[in-house]
This record gives sequence, C-alpha cells and structure tokens, in this order.
Amino acid sequence: MASLTGAEIAKHNNKESCWVIVHGRAYDVTEFLPEHPGGQKIILKYAGKDATKEFDPIHPSDTLDKYLPQSKHLGAVNMDTVAVDKSEEVIDDAEKARLERVQLMPPVSQCYNLLDFEDVARQTMRSAAWAYYSSGADDEITLRENHAAFHRIWFRPRVLVDVDSVDLSTTMLGSKSSVPFYITATALGKLGNPEGEVVLTRAGYRENVIQMIPTLASCSFDEIVDAKQGDQVQWLQLYVNKDREITKKIVQHAEARGCKALWITVDAPQLGRREKDMRSKYDEQAAQVQSDESTVDRSQGAARAISSFIDPALSWKDIPWFQSITKMPIVLKGVQRAEDAIKAVECGVDAILLSNHGGRQLDFARPAIEVLVEVMAALKLHGYEDKIEVYIDGGVRRGTDIIKALCLGAKGVGIGRPFLYAMSTYGENGVVRAIQLLKDELEMNMRLIGATSIDQLNPSFVDVASIGVHSSVPVDNLSSQAYDKLVTPPFKSKL
Amino acid sequence: MASLTGAEIAKHNNKESCWVIVHGRAYDVTEFLPEHPGGQKIILKYAGKDATKEFDPIHPSDTLDKYLPQSKHLGAVNMDTVAVDKSEEVIDDAEKARLERVQLMPPVSQCYNLLDFEDVARQTMRSAAWAYYSSGADDEITLRENHAAFHRIWFRPRVLVDVDSVDLSTTMLGSKSSVPFYITATALGKLGNPEGEVVLTRAGYRENVIQMIPTLASCSFDEIVDAKQGDQVQWLQLYVNKDREITKKIVQHAEARGCKALWITVDAPQLGRREKDMRSKYDEQAAQVQSDESTVDRSQGAARAISSFIDPALSWKDIPWFQSITKMPIVLKGVQRAEDAIKAVECGVDAILLSNHGGRQLDFARPAIEVLVEVMAALKLHGYEDKIEVYIDGGVRRGTDIIKALCLGAKGVGIGRPFLYAMSTYGENGVVRAIQLLKDELEMNMRLIGATSIDQLNPSFVDVASIGVHSSVPVDNLSSQAYDKLVTPPFKSKL
Amino acid sequence: MASLTGAEIAKHNNKESCWVIVHGRAYDVTEFLPEHPGGQKIILKYAGKDATKEFDPIHPSDTLDKYLPQSKHLGAVNMDTVAVDKSEEVIDDAEKARLERVQLMPPVSQCYNLLDFEDVARQTMRSAAWAYYSSGADDEITLRENHAAFHRIWFRPRVLVDVDSVDLSTTMLGSKSSVPFYITATALGKLGNPEGEVVLTRAGYRENVIQMIPTLASCSFDEIVDAKQGDQVQWLQLYVNKDREITKKIVQHAEARGCKALWITVDAPQLGRREKDMRSKYDEQAAQVQSDESTVDRSQGAARAISSFIDPALSWKDIPWFQSITKMPIVLKGVQRAEDAIKAVECGVDAILLSNHGGRQLDFARPAIEVLVEVMAALKLHGYEDKIEVYIDGGVRRGTDIIKALCLGAKGVGIGRPFLYAMSTYGENGVVRAIQLLKDELEMNMRLIGATSIDQLNPSFVDVASIGVHSSVPVDNLSSQAYDKLVTPPFKSKL
Amino acid sequence: MASLTGAEIAKHNNKESCWVIVHGRAYDVTEFLPEHPGGQKIILKYAGKDATKEFDPIHPSDTLDKYLPQSKHLGAVNMDTVAVDKSEEVIDDAEKARLERVQLMPPVSQCYNLLDFEDVARQTMRSAAWAYYSSGADDEITLRENHAAFHRIWFRPRVLVDVDSVDLSTTMLGSKSSVPFYITATALGKLGNPEGEVVLTRAGYRENVIQMIPTLASCSFDEIVDAKQGDQVQWLQLYVNKDREITKKIVQHAEARGCKALWITVDAPQLGRREKDMRSKYDEQAAQVQSDESTVDRSQGAARAISSFIDPALSWKDIPWFQSITKMPIVLKGVQRAEDAIKAVECGVDAILLSNHGGRQLDFARPAIEVLVEVMAALKLHGYEDKIEVYIDGGVRRGTDIIKALCLGAKGVGIGRPFLYAMSTYGENGVVRAIQLLKDELEMNMRLIGATSIDQLNPSFVDVASIGVHSSVPVDNLSSQAYDKLVTPPFKSKL
Repeated sequence: MASLTGAEIAKHNNKESCWVIVHGRAYDVTEFLPEHPGGQKIILKYAGKDATKEFDPIHPSDTLDKYLPQSKHLGAVNMDTVAVDKSEEVIDDAEKARLERVQLMPPVSQCYNLLDFEDVARQTMRSAAWAYYSSGADDEITLRENHAAFHRIWFRPRVLVDVDSVDLSTTMLGSKSSVPFYITATALGKLGNPEGEVVLTRAGYRENVIQMIPTLASCSFDEIVDAKQGDQVQWLQLYVNKDREITKKIVQHAEARGCKALWITVDAPQLGRREKDMRSKYDEQAAQVQSDESTVDRSQGAARAISSFIDPALSWKDIPWFQSITKMPIVLKGVQRAEDAIKAVECGVDAILLSNHGGRQLDFARPAIEVLVEVMAALKLHGYEDKIEVYIDGGVRRGTDIIKALCLGAKGVGIGRPFLYAMSTYGENGVVRAIQLLKDELEMNMRLIGATSIDQLNPSFVDVASIGVHSSVPVDNLSSQAYDKLVTPPFKSKL
Repeated sequence: MASLTGAEIAKHNNKESCWVIVHGRAYDVTEFLPEHPGGQKIILKYAGKDATKEFDPIHPSDTLDKYLPQSKHLGAVNMDTVAVDKSEEVIDDAEKARLERVQLMPPVSQCYNLLDFEDVARQTMRSAAWAYYSSGADDEITLRENHAAFHRIWFRPRVLVDVDSVDLSTTMLGSKSSVPFYITATALGKLGNPEGEVVLTRAGYRENVIQMIPTLASCSFDEIVDAKQGDQVQWLQLYVNKDREITKKIVQHAEARGCKALWITVDAPQLGRREKDMRSKYDEQAAQVQSDESTVDRSQGAARAISSFIDPALSWKDIPWFQSITKMPIVLKGVQRAEDAIKAVECGVDAILLSNHGGRQLDFARPAIEVLVEVMAALKLHGYEDKIEVYIDGGVRRGTDIIKALCLGAKGVGIGRPFLYAMSTYGENGVVRAIQLLKDELEMNMRLIGATSIDQLNPSFVDVASIGVHSSVPVDNLSSQAYDKLVTPPFKSKL
Repeated sequence: MASLTGAEIAKHNNKESCWVIVHGRAYDVTEFLPEHPGGQKIILKYAGKDATKEFDPIHPSDTLDKYLPQSKHLGAVNMDTVAVDKSEEVIDDAEKARLERVQLMPPVSQCYNLLDFEDVARQTMRSAAWAYYSSGADDEITLRENHAAFHRIWFRPRVLVDVDSVDLSTTMLGSKSSVPFYITATALGKLGNPEGEVVLTRAGYRENVIQMIPTLASCSFDEIVDAKQGDQVQWLQLYVNKDREITKKIVQHAEARGCKALWITVDAPQLGRREKDMRSKYDEQAAQVQSDESTVDRSQGAARAISSFIDPALSWKDIPWFQSITKMPIVLKGVQRAEDAIKAVECGVDAILLSNHGGRQLDFARPAIEVLVEVMAALKLHGYEDKIEVYIDGGVRRGTDIIKALCLGAKGVGIGRPFLYAMSTYGENGVVRAIQLLKDELEMNMRLIGATSIDQLNPSFVDVASIGVHSSVPVDNLSSQAYDKLVTPPFKSKL
Repeated sequence: MASLTGAEIAKHNNKESCWVIVHGRAYDVTEFLPEHPGGQKIILKYAGKDATKEFDPIHPSDTLDKYLPQSKHLGAVNMDTVAVDKSEEVIDDAEKARLERVQLMPPVSQCYNLLDFEDVARQTMRSAAWAYYSSGADDEITLRENHAAFHRIWFRPRVLVDVDSVDLSTTMLGSKSSVPFYITATALGKLGNPEGEVVLTRAGYRENVIQMIPTLASCSFDEIVDAKQGDQVQWLQLYVNKDREITKKIVQHAEARGCKALWITVDAPQLGRREKDMRSKYDEQAAQVQSDESTVDRSQGAARAISSFIDPALSWKDIPWFQSITKMPIVLKGVQRAEDAIKAVECGVDAILLSNHGGRQLDFARPAIEVLVEVMAALKLHGYEDKIEVYIDGGVRRGTDIIKALCLGAKGVGIGRPFLYAMSTYGENGVVRAIQLLKDELEMNMRLIGATSIDQLNPSFVDVASIGVHSSVPVDNLSSQAYDKLVTPPFKSKL
C-alpha cells in the first residue's frame, strides 16, 4: 500500500483544502472545519502538518472514528517524508528550568500531604497543563476560598471514647466504598499524564475508591470502563448535549457498561473564563495570529469552544426525562443554594452535589462547605433530611476537611485536582500514596475527635459559628499589583 | 503681519508684566493673575515663556477665548525665535525607564480584565498623570475599600434555569443602554491621552454605552458633544458655581445640545487632598520655589485651586431652583447615607448616585455598595423604592461587581478610572476592549447565576451578611512603613 | 578661684568616693548614690568623669540644685584638663548611616501628614531616643491597635449642607482653644531636641493649641511656664509622689503659675516594660557590666527607675484631698472602663481621659476610641453625659481620627508622639507644620461630612458597628519571627 | 575480664543476629527486634555498631535494665577496637552554619521574653531536635492559633486601686506555688539538653514552680524525683498502658515517691502526625532505605512508634479504677468541650486540663483559652463551678496570657515548649530567667489591671467578645506556596 508523503499533504494547508496528520495517518478535515468545537483557527495552524502532539491530550482516541466520515480518512503517511516542525521544538529558558526540576523531583515518599503533590506539580508540569488544571474564574477568589472556608470550622472533640478500631467505610448512592470520598470527574487527563484517566481508575481499584468518569476525558469512555477491575465502582459525569439523542445514547451506554450513578452537571451552562489559562502559552500563540487586537475575539477560548455542545437551556423540566431513560440514581452536580436543594428533593432526584465547579465557573460563588450548612438547615426545616443524599466538593485537601463535611451532614466528598497533581507527578503510585495519606489522616483524626465510624459523625463535633463570615477573603492579587502604595517622604539622593 | 519674537516676550516675565505663549500665540495675563483658579505661581513659572505643554491637559481649548478679553490676545509668535526650554526636557532615570516600558507594552489582547489595563497604565503613564488619576484621599483606605467591599458579597446562584439567551440591555433615566453601566465623569482627560474625553465618546458610541460629560474635562463641553454620533446618549455632570447665572447657562446649554440628564455633584464642596498627587513631580517643583518651608501654603494644591469656583454653600434649598431651570431628570451625585436618600425622594429629584467620589474626597467614607444596602432598606421602609432610581459608583472592576450592585437594587453603575486607564494606554481601542470584556463577563456571569435579563436580578442572588463588617481594612501603608518592628535578640557579629 | 582638674576628679571613681562633672562643674554624689532613682550603676559608669551628655536629656536643669545639698557642689572644673572619653565617641556603622541620612533629610514641606514626620524621625533620630519615644508594652499590640482601631470606624456624611465657613474652635476645661486637640504630656523632650519641651510651648503659642506640661519633662516646670506667651493655656500632668507634701507643692506652684487644669495620671502605678527600649544602646551597655547574666536584674530598667517615686497606692480615696488643695479642674488621666467613668462622676471630678498611656503600659489594654463608645453609653444610661468632660488619647494621626472621637462624644483629643517626632526632626517649625496639617485636614473633613462647627458633631456621622471586633489584630512580630514555616518537599540539589 | 571487640560485634549486623553497643557495653537485641516500640529499622541501622548517640535522648537510663533480660547483656566492649562511624560525622553546610551561630549566641540577658528564647532555639538547636519540639499537627493551624487566640482577648483595667503590694502565689490541687503556672510534661528532654528533664526540676526548685513529670521523659522517673529539693512539688503525667498492671505500678510508685497529683492524658489515643518532624533529618534517612517509595510505610513514624503502648480503648468507664488505686488528686489532661467537662465533674475527678496537646494532635482543635469560656459557662449553668479545678495549656507566652486565663476562671496554666527552649539554649539559668521574666510580667500587669492577688481576678477584667471568631486564622503556608498567583500582562522582553 503506497503511503502518502509529507510533501503531498503540505499542499493542503488552507481553508479551501485542509489535511492534517494524526498518529501517522492523514485526514481531510476541510468540511469539518466549521463544526470543530475548538474553532477553525487551531486546526488551520496545523493544516498540512502533523497535529498529533496538539491533538492527543484533548481528544479521546475514538474521536476521529466517531466524528469524521470514513471517506475523509486518507490512510497511512510515510512519516520519514514529513519534515519535523522545528519551531515547535524551541525550548525557552523557563522550559529548560522546568526540565531540570523534573530531574531533581523529590521522591514521592517526601510528599506527606496533598498540598505537597500540588507544589511539586506546579514546579514540574508543562506550563499549559498546569495552567489548565490549576486555574479558576476571574480573580480566583472562590478557587482559594474553597479550601480556606474549612479553616473557619473548628473541632469539638470528645475524649475518653474507646477508639481502638476505626472504620472508614461507607455507602454512597448504594455502592460500598472504603472511604467517604471519591475521585471526581476532571477534564483532559492526558495533559498531566500520557495515559490519562485510566491511571486514576487503576489507583482507585488498588485503594477501593470510587471514580467518576468525566465527559471531557482524554481517554474514551470505554477505555476508562475497560480499565476497571473486579467489582470496582464507577459513576458517570454528564454534560447535557443540545441533541438529547446523543445524551440518551451516552447515558444508556454508561448504564449498560455498569456505571452505578448519573451525575448531571448543572453549574456549567457555559464554561468559565480562566485568565491564568488564557494567559498560558496556547493563548499567546493565538494572540499572535489575531488580526485585530483591539476587540474581544468571541470565537476563541478553549473552555468556551469545548463547551459549545453543552445545552444552556437545560432546566428543571428536563429532569423527568432523565428519570425516564435510566435506572441509575441521579445526582444534580453543582447545586448552590438551599432553594434548589428543596426543589431537587421535590423533583425526586436521589442526591445533590453542592459544588462551584472547583472555583472555575463563577467567582464569588460560595464554598460548598458553607452552602452545606445552609442546605442541611433547610432540609431539616422541611423534614427532608433523609430524602436525599448530599455531597460536596471543592478545596478538600486534608482528612480534617472531609470529617468536617461529614459532621455537617455530607454523605461523601469529591476530590479532583489533588489526584490530577499526584497523577501528573508520580503517576499511579502518586495517586495511591495520595489516597493512603488521606486514609491515614482520616483514621487518626477520627480517633482524635472520638469517633470510630462514619455514621457517628454529627454537628456537635464542629464549631461552625464563623463559616459564613466573609470579612477577610483571599488576596486580590491583580489589585495588589496594580495599586501604587503610598510612601513617606523620600530622602534626597547622595551626590 | 509681523510676528512677535521670543526676545520681546521674554521681557514680560514677572508680576508687573506677565506674557505667556500658548499654541504659538502670545497672551498678556498680567491682570488675570489674581483670578487664576490654579494660583499665580504656576503662571509666573512660565512668565515670558511657552506654557503650551503645561496649559494643554488642564484647559479646554475655548478657555482663553472665554476668560481672557480679546485685547489681551497679542497675536502670533514667530516660534523660531523662542528658545526651547531645556530645563523642562531633562529626562531622569525613572522617566527613561518609563519610556522604555512604553516601547515594550503588552498588546491590548493580553489585557483580560480591567485591572490589567490599570497595571499597564501604572507602568507606562507619565508619573504626574498617573498620580492625578490614581490618587485618593488621605491613606487611600476608602479608595481601596471601594473595590474590596465587593469581595464581602457572595453569590447564591440558581441552577437549571434556561439561560440560552441573555439580554444585558436596560433603561437608565429614561434612556436605553446596551448595558447597565455608564462611563462616568472624570477630570483632565488629556493628562492620559492627547485627544482627551472625545476618545471616550467615540468608544461609547461603538459599544452603545452612555457617557457622562465632566465639568472639569480637558476638552470643551461642545467638543465632547460634537463627537457624539447617531442617537448616542450623553449626560451632564455639574459642579455648581458660586455664580448661579454661569451654572444656569451651562445647564441650559447642555439641555439644548441634547444632554439627557443632569448629575449635580453634592459630595465635593471642596476638592480633596490627595497626597500621592501632592508628592508627584509638580508638587516637588512647587516645593522648590516656596519661600518658607515650615508652614502649610494654603494657596497651593491643584485640586483646591481648580475647585475655587465651586460653591460650598450649595444646599437642599437650591434644589427647586434647578428643577425650575431644566426639564432634564436631576440626579444628586454623591449621596452617602439613608437619611439623605429619603430627603432626595421628598425633594422630588429623579435619582441619586451613591458615591464617595472614587475615594478622592473623604477617607473612611463607606463604599457605595455598602451604603446601597442601607439606602434600599430605608427606601423600602418608607415605601419609596419605586420613587427614585439609585445608582452607585466606586471600585467597580468586574462584571460580578456590577451584578452584585444590580441584585441589591441599583439601576446602574458608573465606571471611571478603568476607562481612563484603557484610554491612556491603548486609546479608543483600549476603551472598546475594556467595555467588551465587561460585557463578556456580564453575559457569562448572568448565565452562571441563573438570570437572563437585568430585571430578574434581586437580593436572593447574593449573600450580603458581611458587607458592613469592617474588622479588616486595607493596609495602612504609611503606618506600616513608619512602624519599627520588634526583633528577637541579635546574634553577635563574627569578627 | 582655682579650678578643679580632671586628674583630681578621676581619683573619685568608685562607690566609696564618687565625683562627676556636669556642665563644667564637679559634684560629690557619693552619699546620693543609693537614692538615685535611676540606680547606682549608671552613675558609677561616669564616676570620676564628665557625665554631661548622659545627664542632660534626663534631668531638668534645676535637678542638682534641688536634690543635691550645696555642700556637695564642688565648683568649676578646668575642662582643658579633662580627658575626652574616646570610648563614648565611637561611631558604629549604623550611626554613620544615620548621620548621613540626617544630611539628606527631606524638606519639611514634603511632610504631608503626621506619619511622614514619624518615618523621618525613625530614620534620623538617635537610636536610643527613637527607642524611648516609639516603644510600647510587650508585643506593642496596643501601641498599634490604638491607631488601627480608628480604621474600624467609618463615616456617614451628610450632603447638601452649607459648609461655606467652618469653625474648629472649642472650649476644653473652661479654656478656649483654636482646635479640639491639645499637645499632651510626654517625657524626656531633650532626647529628641536639645531645647526640650519649650519647643512645643512656642509652637503651641503660634497655633493657639493648649499644652499639657509633663512631670517627667527634660526642661524644668518653670522653664516651660516661662516660655508661655500671651494668654497661652497650659495644663499640668501629675505623677503622684509617695510624699504627698511634694505633690501638694507641685500642684499649688502650678496653679500659682497659671496652669488651668490638673491631670492626675492614674494608669501608671508602675512604669511599663518596653522591650524595644530595653534592647537599645543603653541596655546593651548595661548588659556588659552585669555580673550574673542568668537572673533578671530587678534594680534595672530606666522606666522603672524613673518611676520609683510614683505612689502605687494611689486610690479613689485620695481624690477628695486633691479637690481640697486646688481650684483647678481635675482630670483623671488613664481611665479604661465604664465602671470607673461612673465612679469618676460620682467622685465629682471634672473630666476623665480615656487612655492606655500610648500603649506603653499594659499590652492588650483596649484603644481609647473603643472605650469611649462603652463609656458614653454608660454615662447616658446613668444620665451623667453632661456631668463630666471626656477626653481620649492614643493613636491619633489624622484629622478624621479626631472627628470620629468628637462624633462619639469626646470633648477633645490628646496628641503626643507625633509632635515629639516633628520636634525631633524639624524643631519648632516642624511642630507648627504638623498642627497646620491637622487643621487643614480637620477643616476639609468637617466640610466633607457636612458639619461646620464642633458642637454639630454627633454619633449619626459614624458607623461604629465594628469597633469592638478584635478578630484581626496587629501582627505579632516576635511570634512570626520565631515560627518556622512548613515547607513543601525540597527538590534534590544539582551536583 | 576480657572485653568484647568491635570486630566481633560487627559480625552481628543483621536480623538473624543483632548486637548493638550502648555506653561501652554490648547487647544482643535479636529477639527484642519485633517488640521495639520504635520499629526494627532504626535498630538494624546500628546493628553491629555503637548506637549510643541515637539511643541516649530517647531512652531513660534504666531502659535496658528494665526491658532486656540480663542474659542479653553481653558485657563491656573495648571501645578502642570499635571503628568510629565517619558517615555519621558528616557535617553539611546547614549544620556548619548552625554551629557558628551557637558560638555567636546572644547573652541570656538579651532575652526579654519567652519568644526570644524560642527564636534563639530555632537558630541554634540541632534540626531534628528543633523539629521534634516545635512541630504540630497537619498545617500547624492549631499550634499557632493557641497563642493567637489570646490576642482576641483585651483588658478592662481598673484604676485608682492601691496596688502597692502584689501577691502572685496560689494553691493548685492542694499544693502551694509561688505562681499560677507550672512546668508541664514534655517528652524527650535530652534532645535539647544532655542532662534532660532534671534541668527543669532544678530550675523549678529555684523559683518555686511545680513540675509535671512526663511519661516519655529522657531521664527516668526516679532520676527526676531524685533531683527534687526541699518540699518541691511534682506531679505525674500518665499515658495509660494497654497493660493496666504496668500503669498501676507506675501510679503507685509515683505516689510513694511523693507525687502530688495524677494527670491522665486523654487527648492522645494515638500520637499525632507532625510533618515538620517527619521531614527532618531522621526521616530523610529513613526514606533512603525504603524499598517501595510509593506506599505509606505504616510501621514508621517516631511518634506513632513511641505511642504503641498507649491504650486507645481508654474510656470514661476506666476512671473509677484510677480512683481506686491512688489517693492523689486526678486530673483529666486534654478535655476539649463543655459536655466532657460536665461528665468529668459527675465522674468525681478533681480537675480537668483544657488542652489540645500543644497543637500536636488534631489540627483545628480549638485553643484551650477559647474552650475555657465555653466550659466555665457550662459549669456555671450546672452549678458546678466550685466542684472542679480547671487548668489550661497551649500557646502561653506572656504574663498577660496567664492573667487572661485566670480572669476567665482557670486555676492555673501549664507552660511547656518555652521552658524546653530556654533549657536547650541556656540550660538551667535560661529556665530560671524565663520564669523570672514571667513573674516580672505578671506582677507588673496585675498592678496595671488593678489587682493585687490571684483570687481578685474575674471576668470583668477582660473583653472576650471576639474569642470565638475564626474569620481570620493563621496562614496556610503550604497552600500559599502551592498557589500560583495571578499576574497582570507581562511586558515584552528587551532584545
């Protein structure tokens, strides 16, 4: 079979005829250009060239088969004939320093808590990947407040309780788990680890921790389910498509493949603006090709592009339909106030996740742990406290954070970024160690507050009086930088 | 026609006979010296010389025609005969560094929010211009608290609302606007951009944003109105003159030229002391010519001088007169407590602006967003909530700031400095981009809180419990600098 | 008359026979050693030598006449025969840098507020003098909180008030003053300025500001009264002596010389420990001569020594006696809680000063401005609000601070350190400028809150809701320095 | 008697046969390996070698006699034949710098407060010792909040009280003390001072301060009791052993030797994780020998190992048994909430210590001073306030801290780390000076609040309104380090 050559492909380098190479095979994407959720510009940048590196972390392996007709699959390319793009290979000083740090990375045994992984990740991840994972909305106030809010909750431990043996296991949405936390859904796992989300699947199996499978994973849904072992539990996170038939197919396929719960994302009708992400490498390149710098290019922005299929019209009236197409328990992911929690009960959903999407959507959305207090009070007032399970996520970094949430009524707690950072630095072993550290913290701290099983946790263990006080908030770094401090009189200069 | 020569003019360089050159023409200002609102000293500095550079940003182009009798207009000067004042041209190290930074300015597309413009402005504007725009009263606590107060307000978003299409348009004082914010009045636009306020007019037209025309503009009122296009809306900001006939002429001229509202400034019976401004270049020069350094020179201070015409006796009893001379809706600009809001309703004015004048007047005046909560509660208590429109300004930098104000009852929000900074760095395109960024933030955040039009916003969307808590305030930089920290025992020195 | 020679005096250099030279005259202080309030050690350091430099700032000029019998006055010394003590002249690097800064001091016109003087003083005063003036008790939390507390009070200005003319004058304790503040009593004025407290007297005259004369002045009482001009008003501050006859003599002499009020210090039964002061030069020298370093030398400490005559047994039952020996209005200086304010009324004193002695006595004593709120509420509750005048001092740096105190019910406000700093840097002109700056700030800010005379000020002008909140306090610098921050995992070192 | 040689011992360097040298004598610990509370690994590191240096600070001198059968005591070693382990002697740069600082240590007379000792200790102690003493649980929030909480309590001093003579003495658990504080139990004293806890005993005697003897002392219990002089009072701190007979022997031996009270630790069923300690030298070495870095080594961790004998099943039902085996007053050490204080009264114990174990156990446990307010209110509500003595410890550094606790109802206050730091830097004299400084502060501050004896202290002297406010907490240093700050647009680089 005669292979295509680089020279031949290089001719198709424009809007009129656009071919790209992915994993040694050529594709004609000319007609697909206007439909590309990420916009035309990024594809045109690779028109006539090898796009594999850019393509990989963002697209599950079944993408081209699923979305591009077979007629546009042009076949194998003789890669020896394809010129290596040197411009991409340029390594600047920052990147050089990063690569050096990667060589000197501390051993994983030196990570004693989840924040340690985060700081190693900050120093060793590729800047674009770090920016994508770590960024939040606007001034990242909510991003930071998510963790900080736990610091406004203090313990009221009981002493002289027999705490010889402590049991951390629990049941969430009907499934058993060794711990009251789960690996939550996060996008684009291959940005941090070439294997992507399956790394989390394997670590979850080793430690008996439930995993939620993301819609926007780098691995395909089936790859992640295939990585499951034994009776490992997985859940499905769902962004609802404007085309409900697609959504139906996804949901029913997940149920068929054994997913045990459906988490419908309700806090992201539009994906957020994250300026740290925008300012990263990718964006800089984008800026260079913009024709008119003065105006906001509304077609741009990775997050917005990726989200183009999400239906902003999703509303309460759609819930019965979901209930009709699946038997999985349904969770509303992203509830943020008591009124909506009450509505959720009255709609008959099985659970709600209090969440602000990791501080990535609306800045000044309240931390979930704070909303939890409001929600549990409202549920009790309505006599609904046993009618629904309540989960929270956002900012969880310590065993104490988890215990506080459970004391206040949460059934379980989602953890996202910390596992991404562990995976991006030390791979599967990193994730396993991160989970083990949490288990260690949980066991010790259960003992220290005087509780031996999850069901014993209750509000009397915490002092929550300051949870709603927002008199001091995370530093507004942009304002601080822009503000010109007053100074006292300058002394004359020496001659 | 024989031109005057530099040598001839140079003879008139003192109080007894004082000539100055402005834009190539000579003027005899000897008799005008005592009347100059900015004081004699600054004119005498240029006696017998070319004063154009100093004159330009501070005086509208019609100033000399308006205030100096034709007999004192001496005619054209042969500028080839005028010695260039080298002493003015000296460029110190700080200025050299600034000019270099101007060359390396980031592209406007790298500004992702209003604070980005501010920080670029800080690094690239001439220091005196920056000091004038950015400074506030006393320790600049109110200046900074204006923005910081928004950080004490958190969102309570609704989910599962159909937010497919979001409409940001609104009506303010009877005029339509594409957005619920306007470009507020700010002085001395030519300090930041040689074209002055008309830059804002043009940007406002492009984005359909209302502009308020300042009394202390660098451009003349008519220049700014002439720059208006189509059915663009403009309002008039007014400092009330001790001579009410002048005020009447200004108001009626504005109405005749199509201004749609009259904003009477009530928070500035005297213009504030701003120490950052005082410490800037201009002041330093002034200091050098002061004879007795030990006493406060009460005739000095740009702000105080400019304000000499403002009537500190303006009071509630003047309001009916204003209502008698114009049909424009009347707004009291600078109300700061509930009692005065009630009085305003009972006086029959159409609207009030809650404002502390951008933190430039009274330090420890409360932020408008905090006063808003007090005012709306009082209006409701009196059944007045529909009898008056309430606006706020001060510290607005984010779309979320605007949404918070609207949720709490504001009809619209004024924005000043951010547009000055955008204009001073990237000109008209900068202002357009700043407006577009705000629109983007507004649209996204409306969606994320679950609202699709301005009229849906209400207090249930915000948690405002901490708004009145002043237990942590902006850093007192002067105190911090002057305070000598305690130290632990010093170790002996090595030999 | 044959002069004494240095050689002769140098023989008397020990406990058995101790002569010292002061201002060119010799004194035999052998028998006085055990009585010296500052302890023997410091005198013995100068035994047989010239002690003038050390003696001067701490002792009024009439000290030797008053306390040393004429028989011990040995007469004039031929100073040419006295060896200059080179060891005292050593100038270390820090002192060299200070002297250089003195040369480069900014002109006084560059001081725009009271904190500017403080920062210039910090950089130019001799370190021991700076340490004595600036130091506070323990961790200096109260010292700093005194000013910081004003930042928890915010204004509620009235607008549209005719503020054409503003009158700052008032009456305090029956005496007229141009302003509602006074120069309070502070010790050891010659540490900062060779002329001492008379500098304040002269500046007070020029600006019509009342001065309180300190017991522990460097100038003698009579020198300070002699410096008075015209109908200038002075008050007497009193530390009560264990020997009541001495106290009686002082009080009646002051009344005879025209003092208009008696301020009895009640917050200093023992003078405070100030570690910054202890760590300064003087202390270091003291440390070198201590024999046993391990124990606290209870005989030491300047403050404690100076205060040895103060009567710690002074109590409420002494008040009637004071009322019997003078007709001057009596003020209790240093009241710190409501219960004592009530007692003061019932005792019939004329006024109280709420004060924590400038944060120099008890750390975590509350700021006077906070105590003021408590006291005025208690007085009102008892119907006592017109029975007593209430003053405050501590932390006042801005015109707004003064206005806040007056709004809350204070009759007047004492200011101490700021005038010391102005005097120590720019002398009399410095103090005059400091007063003028305050007057300027007061006039402007009265106008901006909408008041034209002192008696119009009332609580409705301030929002005082956060005054009692102590959730964030001044930084604990010693703790911060001693605390060893947690760190994330260290990267390996490069080889 | 023929001595053993190094060569001979060196053969027994593994699990199968493990000999070690301690203080010049050899021991066969092969069979003891699995029982070693600190784990096998650390012993095996010294198998066949001299382990004295490592052994000493952690084991009281009677350890080998007590726990190793005489048959395993192999006899004297000819130390000349034992090779010095050079690898242990390596001095890195940090250690070199530390040794230099030790030479330049400030004289003890320059320590003016307890924090001064702490900062000298930080700079001069061996890093592992410093890490062990100074570390706290998790993010060390509670560790720091313990002291910080005192800063939320402010004084309400009385004036005009006769405070001529102040008496600091008090009675605690029936024993007289010169002061209302005691030296509390802390582990491993020889880490800081080669003599260990007897240094504290001697200093306590000199200043008449009660000492609590720790279970985990470096000195043996009897050594510490032997060091007692005169009628010096000592108490016993107890970790309860799983084997109650051992516990009974310890308690009854202590009573027999004159201990005056039994403090049963109830807040440490498991000893805490302290990451600073884990990250210190010891841990690093441990890391190097770990085979699989990816998993948490559950057998490791000094604290956990040392605590292996502690009974986590200890509960309220064990209390009567303690009451049956001793006549000493019984104190529950580590109560943390009001409910348990009530229970303690009803159990008939004599006293409780409110404590979070110096912030070393459960992070976000509330400071004892805060719990004290809750506990005293509950006791009063039940009419129990005179039925039990209440003590607190944690974060006490100043005389004012002690006075605040006493005002709020504490009978006495425990102080631990500060005396360890004083002992580790300046030995016995350091501890004596630290106590004297506290006495000085106490005497002065009693005078300044207007109290002359301990029993006069009451809640009216303090303003405690903000004690429970946790809106601003100690800095989360790991989060701060890991967080990547937002930045404004970068300027282009110069070429």
